Amino acid sequence: MKEMANSPKKSSKDTLDVAATVEAVFGCKWSLRILGLIRQGVCRPGAIERALEGLTPRVQTYYFRRMVALGILERIVYPEIPPRVEYHLTNFGLHFMPILDSIAELQGDLEGIAENK
Amino acid sequence: MKEMANSPKKSSKDTLDVAATVEAVFGCKWSLRILGLIRQGVCRPGAIERALEGLTPRVQTYYFRRMVALGILERIVYPEIPPRVEYHLTNFGLHFMPILDSIAELQGDLEGIAENK
Repeated sequence: MKEMANSPKKSSKDTLDVAATVEAVFGCKWSLRILGLIRQGVCRPGAIERALEGLTPRVQTYYFRRMVALGILERIVYPEIPPRVEYHLTNFGLHFMPILDSIAELQGDLEGIAENK
Repeated sequence: MKEMANSPKKSSKDTLDVAATVEAVFGCKWSLRILGLIRQGVCRPGAIERALEGLTPRVQTYYFRRMVALGILERIVYPEIPPRVEYHLTNFGLHFMPILDSIAELQGDLEGIAENK
């Protein structure tokens, strides 16, 4: 049984471990909310911070770094004055998001059934 | 961070935790191979054992119980002489399998990229 970790998971072939990444991201509400905003095109740290009440810059930085390490997001710094920073989904992230959506949908169905018992 | 366990995962609403189930099943080659056969209609323990070299009845029983506990499979006993036992995907299992397929596809893509480096 693999252990959970905050660091990016690598499979035996030195690639990201998709299933472990599912668990790492799906169990984390801030990550899901940040990714939701980035998918809507809200990709600058300041805008994300304003959109998510209770998310401090320090905590936000932690989640950005974690999702960059997981290979889901990439950090882009534009050489402007002052420098502009944006976070975008990587190619892996673009393919990973529909899997998260499917899981969220199935989880929602299960919880709907449980509530109607 | 949630811990991994062999027991079925329940979310706060007493339903299965889909993301944890992904990790539990996807990391387990025997589970994936057994599920592959069941999807092809090979659903009796004897037939599965014959199809999977190296899978002893004892180990097979362990994986069947685990996947029943995870809510993916159900055990059906037909009242015949001798009793006939079959394992079928539950409704949850039927919805869960396409998620596993998507993860396998993405994992395969990643490993293909790594091999071509």
